[in-house]
Amino acid sequence: MKKPADFMKKAIDLSHEHMTAGHGGPFGAVIVKDGKIISEGWNQVLSTNDPTAHAEVQAIRKASQNLGCFDLSGAEIYTSCEPCPMCLAAIYWARLDKIYYANTRKDAADIDFDDDFIYQEVPKPIEQRKITMTQISHDEALKVFKAWTAKGDRTLY
Amino acid sequence: MKKPADFMKKAIDLSHEHMTAGHGGPFGAVIVKDGKIISEGWNQVLSTNDPTAHAEVQAIRKASQNLGCFDLSGAEIYTSCEPCPMCLAAIYWARLDKIYYANTRKDAADIDFDDDFIYQEVPKPIEQRKITMTQISHDEALKVFKAWTAKGDRTLY
Repeated sequence: MKKPADFMKKAIDLSHEHMTAGHGGPFGAVIVKDGKIISEGWNQVLSTNDPTAHAEVQAIRKASQNLGCFDLSGAEIYTSCEPCPMCLAAIYWARLDKIYYANTRKDAADIDFDDDFIYQEVPKPIEQRKITMTQISHDEALKVFKAWTAKGDRTLY
Repeated sequence: MKKPADFMKKAIDLSHEHMTAGHGGPFGAVIVKDGKIISEGWNQVLSTNDPTAHAEVQAIRKASQNLGCFDLSGAEIYTSCEPCPMCLAAIYWARLDKIYYANTRKDAADIDFDDDFIYQEVPKPIEQRKITMTQISHDEALKVFKAWTAKGDRTLY
């Protein structure tokens, strides 16, 4: 029976291996269900030119493809670093049960990644964020939300 | 010369069209650079079984593929709904200049999406979140961060 430290070792090994190969930053993750690894992810921001290709997001994408389902309830994620807000929110959307992490957002800040900065930005009121956010066309957009509510066959997620 | 309301109309049209087609929730987005749309995104959570396939994330992925670059500085995103924390953080990672949005996170909550709930969770101290987070194997993971710092040819992003 594998232990949490065994699964985390795999996540850390992925982080090292793919960092060395130049695929992206030093981040790896695995998703585990029923005691088995169902997907592996590593940072691919550099190799794919995709700023969303963080280890956890990649692992979630692969796990949902492997299971054929956007709901990963009953599974756990092991990530070599505390998830950034993008990855944390992705974990909530994927309904993962538990997060094991090793390095922290402060460790990531120490090696010049923006995780901690983005954690400070997300909870701010819209008008106080570094990025400008402007609301327009609310009435037109709200009509589509009302059409969604009126739609008989919608799937909630 | 197109105006912000024209670009937002496209984002809203995408949200309606793809919701109707059953691809996912009622969310659309476009990314604009130098007055032209460089990518379109819509929610594809249902059609792709990918919980990370939100409109903004999809638009960012396509824009970075189209430009061959993970850095979208100089571009703006028009999204039919205020970005959820995953999409907001993705926008920061992509270095987009500005966000135009139409519906709000409260409107999304009113039609049963979890955006507002996740906004409440992200800033909480780790031990107070609904999802359990456990730190293990810190020493082993920190060695990889130190190896990243020592790496001569790393690209910062």
